[in-house]
Formats: sequence, C-alpha cells, structure tokens
Amino acid sequence: METARIGVTGLAVMGRNLARNLARHGHPVAVHNRTAARTKALVEEFGDEGTFLPADTPERFVASLERPRRLVIMVKAGAPTDAVIDEFAPLLEPGDMIVDGGNAHFADTRRREAALRERGIHFVGTGISGGEEGALHGPSIMPGGSAESYEALGPLLEDIAAKVDGTPCCTHVGPDGAGHFVKMVHNGIEYSDMQLIAESYDLLRHAAGLAPAEIAEVFRTWNTGRLESYLIEITAEVLAHTDAATGKPFVDVVLDQAEQKGTGRWTVQTALDLGVPVGGIAEAVFARSVSGHADLREASRNLPGPSRTAVADSGFADKVEKALYASKIVAYAQGFHEIQAGSAEYGWDIDAGAMATIWRGGCIIRARFLDRIRAAYDADPSTPTLLTDDHFAEALGDAQDAWRDVVATAARIGVPAPGFSTALAYYDSLRADRLPAALTQGQRDFFGAHTYRRVDRDGSFHTLWGGDRTEVQA
Amino acid sequence: METARIGVTGLAVMGRNLARNLARHGHPVAVHNRTAARTKALVEEFGDEGTFLPADTPERFVASLERPRRLVIMVKAGAPTDAVIDEFAPLLEPGDMIVDGGNAHFADTRRREAALRERGIHFVGTGISGGEEGALHGPSIMPGGSAESYEALGPLLEDIAAKVDGTPCCTHVGPDGAGHFVKMVHNGIEYSDMQLIAESYDLLRHAAGLAPAEIAEVFRTWNTGRLESYLIEITAEVLAHTDAATGKPFVDVVLDQAEQKGTGRWTVQTALDLGVPVGGIAEAVFARSVSGHADLREASRNLPGPSRTAVADSGFADKVEKALYASKIVAYAQGFHEIQAGSAEYGWDIDAGAMATIWRGGCIIRARFLDRIRAAYDADPSTPTLLTDDHFAEALGDAQDAWRDVVATAARIGVPAPGFSTALAYYDSLRADRLPAALTQGQRDFFGAHTYRRVDRDGSFHTLWGGDRTEVQA
Repeated sequence: METARIGVTGLAVMGRNLARNLARHGHPVAVHNRTAARTKALVEEFGDEGTFLPADTPERFVASLERPRRLVIMVKAGAPTDAVIDEFAPLLEPGDMIVDGGNAHFADTRRREAALRERGIHFVGTGISGGEEGALHGPSIMPGGSAESYEALGPLLEDIAAKVDGTPCCTHVGPDGAGHFVKMVHNGIEYSDMQLIAESYDLLRHAAGLAPAEIAEVFRTWNTGRLESYLIEITAEVLAHTDAATGKPFVDVVLDQAEQKGTGRWTVQTALDLGVPVGGIAEAVFARSVSGHADLREASRNLPGPSRTAVADSGFADKVEKALYASKIVAYAQGFHEIQAGSAEYGWDIDAGAMATIWRGGCIIRARFLDRIRAAYDADPSTPTLLTDDHFAEALGDAQDAWRDVVATAARIGVPAPGFSTALAYYDSLRADRLPAALTQGQRDFFGAHTYRRVDRDGSFHTLWGGDRTEVQA
Repeated sequence: METARIGVTGLAVMGRNLARNLARHGHPVAVHNRTAARTKALVEEFGDEGTFLPADTPERFVASLERPRRLVIMVKAGAPTDAVIDEFAPLLEPGDMIVDGGNAHFADTRRREAALRERGIHFVGTGISGGEEGALHGPSIMPGGSAESYEALGPLLEDIAAKVDGTPCCTHVGPDGAGHFVKMVHNGIEYSDMQLIAESYDLLRHAAGLAPAEIAEVFRTWNTGRLESYLIEITAEVLAHTDAATGKPFVDVVLDQAEQKGTGRWTVQTALDLGVPVGGIAEAVFARSVSGHADLREASRNLPGPSRTAVADSGFADKVEKALYASKIVAYAQGFHEIQAGSAEYGWDIDAGAMATIWRGGCIIRARFLDRIRAAYDADPSTPTLLTDDHFAEALGDAQDAWRDVVATAARIGVPAPGFSTALAYYDSLRADRLPAALTQGQRDFFGAHTYRRVDRDGSFHTLWGGDRTEVQA
C-alpha cells in the first residue's frame, strides 16, 4: 500500500490549497474531510498536480501515513480544533505529530500541546500567513512545538514556504505555543500597519487635498522606496480602482466600517498581560471598532470641530511619508517587544531576527523593511528596542520634524490620526528623562498608601499625607 | 445568645475598617479572621465603637449571624476568595448571602454566583471604592447579585456608604457580576483621569515652564471650577509638597515609574472583548507600563528629538484646562460606553446615570462633574454617547481650539500626550462623515477576500482583484 508523507484533514480553501502545495512539491499527501464530497472534489479537480491519497474515514486516513505520522489539521479555531484532535489522537502512536495550521490562540495551543505530550504525541501549533494564495503558492510558516518535531516537519514545511533570496519563510519558532503566539503578533502588527496607511490616505485626502487616484500614485511612488511592501502595493491598487457601477472611486463606495476577526484584539490583550505597551496595535483595533459603531457616529456627526480643510503645503505628502515610516518603526518595535516579552515569559527562546526573516515573503506584512529589522537584531541580538538601532534611530531623527508636523496638523484640522499620535507619544515617552509617572505614584501614595520609590535611595516609602506629611520607610 | 446583623471575615485593613464602619452605625457585627490575633486586636482597639461579636472559628462566626445570614468576605481576590467561599458555604443555608467586597474580576464573580445560586445562596459581588479611609468613613459601594439579596443588604450598605446631598453612594447595580464590572470600569476611568492630569502637569512644567509649586496653584484654581474633584485636589497637595530630606519638590524625588494592580488592564481587555473603543484607558495603562520599562527608557534616552522647550504663550495654562476637561469628557464617555455594552451583553439592565450618582462620594473619581453625567442620562437615558449631551457638546465646542492647540504643541515640543491625543482622535473619528476604514475594508477584500459592504446597496461584495476586477455579490 502506498503511503503519504503527510496528511491534511479539513479541506476548506486553506486546507485544500496547502494540500495542493505539498503535492505540487512532490510530497504524496493524504487528504481527508469530514464530508467526503470535498475530498472527492479536490482529487477530481487537482489530482494531476501530484500524488493525493484520499481517505474517507479517519482510520483509513491515519493508516495511509508513513511513520512517524504527520497530520495537519486545517479546521476552524476553537471547539472544532478540539473535536478533531479528540477524533484523531486515539488513532496515533507515540512520536506522531499533529500540526494545527489554524488561527488558534496560543494559550489553547499550550494546553493542547501539554495534553498530547503526555500521550507521546507532538502537537505543533503552526501559524500560517498569506491567506489562500499564500497557502497555495508559498506562505510564511511559523511552527511551534518540540525541536524534535521540527526535525521531521521542517524540511517539508520549508519546501512549501515562500522563499526570499533563496531562504524559506519558515523556521522553528520555539516550543509549544510559540508559533501561534508569533503569528498573533504578526497579525497585530498588520493591524497597526494598515491603520497607519489608512491615516496616511486620510491625511493626503483631507490635508493635502488629493483625489484617490492621485493618492494611488503617491503610494506607488512610496512603493519604490523604503516603504516598499505588499500592503503599500495593494493600497495603490485599491485606491486606483474605479467602481464600475457608479464610476466613482472604489474607496468612496465602500462602507467605512472596518471589520476584524480577533487576532488584533488578542495581541493587545496579551500585551496587557505581559506589561508591554502596544499603543499602535491598540489604536488600530479601536479605530476599526469606532468605525463600526454606526449609532455613535450617527449621533456624533454634528459635534463641533473644524471641517478638515486642506493645508497649503506642497511638501505635505513627503511629510506624511516620513510620519508613516517613523510610526511604522514604532509599531514594529512594539510588536517585537511583545515577542521578546512572550519569549521570556514562556521560556521560548525565540530568535526575533529570524521572525523578521520569515515574514519577508508569503505574508501580508512582507516588506523590504524587514531586512532592516533582521540587521538590527544581527547587530545587537539583545537590544531592548529596535528604536535604538543605528539605521532606525537615524531614520527617526530625519523624520522627526515632519512627523511632529503631521500629528500637529491632523489635530488642528480635525483628521483623526490615533496611530501616528500614539507612536509619537511612545517615542517621546521613551526619550524623556523624566515622566509625569512620578506624580501618578505620588497620587497613588496619597489616596491608597501604595508607596513610592525615590530617585536617590533604595526602598519603598510612604508619606503620611493625612498626618504631618513626614516620610516613613514602608 | 446575642446575634449579629452582619459578619465580616478577613480583617486586614479594608475588612477591619468596614466592620468598624458597620459597628459605628449601630449594627452589631460578627468579626472573624483566619488568624485569631487580628480579631482580638480589632475588638481590643476599637471595641468601644459599637457591638462586635468576635468568633474564633467559622462555625461560631456563622452561628452568631441572624437569619438570613449576611456574610461579608474581605480577602484577596482570586484563589483566597474561592478558598473562603469553600470554607463557609457548607455552613450556610438557602437564603443566606455571601458578599464579596474584594476586587474580583467580574467573570469570577459570575462563576461564583452561578455555583452558589444552585445551592440557594446569594452571592453578592460588591465593588467597594475609597480605600481604607472610604471603608471606614463611607465608601462608594457597588453591589451586584440578586434583587432579593439587595432587599436584605441594601439598607445596611446604604447606611455605611458615603452620602452626597443626602443620597447614599450605593445602589443595586444589577445581577451577578454587575457590581464588580462597574467597579472595574470605575478603576479604568480612574487610570484615564490620572493620566490626563499627569499630562497636564507635564505640559505645564515643560511647555508653560512652571515649577511644581506654581503648578500646584494652577490645580488649586482649577479645583474651584468645573474640574473640582478629589483627584485634582490631591494633585495640588502632592505638587505643593516639599521633600524634607532634600528640600526639593516632592514630585522630583519620586521615581517616575508608575505601578498598577490590574483593574485598568482588565477594563481594556474586557472592552476589547465587547468591541468598545477605550483608547483613553488603554493609553493610561500603557503610559504606566512604558514608565516602568527602565531598560527601554535607558536605551532610548538619546534618541533624537526636541528638548521640550517652553512655548511663549501666557494663556497656555487655560488651554490645558480646556484640553483636560474635553479629554475627561471623552474618557468618561468611553467608560460609560463600556458599562452600557457590558450591561447589554450580560443582560444587567444597569442604570448608567445611577452609577454617576454613586460615584459622587467615597471613591477616588468623586467629582462635581458626575452630576453632569447624571443629568445627561436623565435627559436621554438611551443616548449612545455622553458626548452629544447639550452641556458636554457645548463644552467640547468651547474647548476645541485650545484642545487642538495643546495636542499640536505637545507633538511639536516633544512632551508625550497620549491621553489628550487619543481623546481628540476618538472625538474626530466619531465626528467624521467618512473614515478611512473604507480603505481598510478594501485592503482586506484584496488580500483575504473578506468582502465589503457598499454605501449604496445592501449585501456583501467582493472584487475579483486577481482577475478582471469586476464585483461579485458574496
């Protein structure tokens, strides 16, 4: 009986495309789906792309895999993932591997990994980025799980991953939930990046007074420079597009209520647990949620304020480019801070620079910029923040005046720029020799006897605010 | 045998003061602590303040309570609370009440309430704000749990609560976790309020060039106007204070790393789950966490930027007052939005205006301002946002130019003002007739076929971006 090198169960578009990608690379792949029609359709439509071994039952599916078995599950995150694990795990043997390629929360992945490890089964929570097209033509792949499992899986996954300069966009991220954690932060950064682009567009439209087609040209130009990236590229495409039905710019006929699927939210919630400030991602998530509150917006439409009049500044688009680049550096610095903090918290030992490398292709935030991040970590692997890397610090210095001018202009003319603003405030907070947090600590000591530390002596102190205001050692 | 009207177990400072408050109001109170020394100390020190019935075992404690029993637990949130519940619940009978006066997460309270309800016991998660002093002299009390339990507990709790204009700062918030939820949001608003005050101070210091003692005077003046509040009052006190050891302003000897205990974080995490934008609270939490990252700050100290030079603007302090008032309106509007959303999500039917009323005394955010919020909800109980209330809209209109000027100035001179900035961006987002979220939706449709809606037709649509770019109905 012919055996498959790997199996994929769950043949919705992502699973189907991943299976095809494997087959196209010469790996015999077992395919299975809860409803057999999808399995049949896959083989009928794409059977000539490689070797597919269709299975109509979990037992036959598992039996068709060479050992140790590599079983990829591509189902909805949450309860469906648990259900599939419960179905297949009893059919497996110690040393076998279950790869979860869905968008699981890393905490679920940690739980599942621990439970399956007790049974000798490797559970490999794997972030896969790049959507349908990526899954088929080469995604960015972020596998967690044991180092041992990566030995058996790595060559296959690297084979089907995107390649940039010959390097596969796949590496072993770290143990248990590390892969899904990094994928989550990747998505959070994506939110932030998209919000900064949205604000750039809004400012070019209302502060520079440009039409969507003109703004498309601006983005096209930016895409030939340091901002070169997939997101900038498709922004130009979307803005250049004309709605056939109305003849209007496409962006003007789309309802301005952005949706979200949850990974941005998770990134912020996790950052809060880790004590990592990720204002850029939080403001991006909130901006989407503000946009969706039609009732609040309707009620607030007539609140007083300026009417977003264009400013007379011929160099404004260049200033926005600088504000965008500077804010983007901050957004990525915050995201990588979260990765470093998660790695420390869970003992994952994640190579941050390697994450920049595997995001260069296949995924939504792929960008020339990521080589700079890789270089920054190569130069100083233990840097507490990307901001201080020579290249980035120089870029931030150069962007400075323009960045501040853009934030100030947005405030004055009433164009919301929460992403640019929070990035600048974060930057200025880190630079500050003194922060007003000292006042906050004084207040906390006043109303709650929470104590404070001093700049000139070790220890915790409390002032007797309700008494003679002497200071006591706490 | 003499019976107690109510009992308190857990006699650390909060529990002890609450028991004393009850006794001082003429309510015989049973007192119990895991280590009996504390019980003994309480009775020895404060026995003449009222009738205390000390108990050295849980059994004797419970036996000393009149029926239905009212048992208040004042222990650390988390596992200790569960342990105490497990210890006492078996000693109780249907109809008895357990009041949890700790800072529990509302989700834990919901779980505990449901479990105890099955045994016929009322579990009343209760937010108590005001710290030690409040517990003793009159806190703001936010009880959740069943309406039936409030009938038996309400008179006692209202008796010991703070009073403003004769009205007790206590009301039945709503079922199960509603009390702890509202207390959580109260704390989140407190974070936001404190951050805005910190930014005001920082701007007065570095943009207006004032010394701490001078800034104390500014806050004292503000405290005679619409900003009158406990937090503004103590800000003046803290800023006016001189450190005895060095002769320097106290605020300059306090280490500028703000700490936090978690309720601000919970407020943001919960808001994210509810889809409520609370940028003001998030930026406040992040500002504290940035301040505490000594390593990042140390590394970033020499990043390029302006040196916070004072601006020549004699009216700047007045502008900051307006920015502070406007941003505070936004912060409270966001917090109350979260309360409304939580109430809808969990079916709590919370009277938002009543929350403003019970926060007017006893708690940290007590302020004249809260009467305005009460009035806003009286005028329109179903308003989706406080911003559109006549008074607030007028104040926002009046503050407008100054607010924008302060945010712009902060950006230009390098004083971080994330709270002011996010409040302004939120305001301008709600006002906007169109948001760049339309571009975001266009991008999402481009890279992930996530579809979009149109402004002119119902339905979901997808553009064939990889094909001939026609539009299809999804």
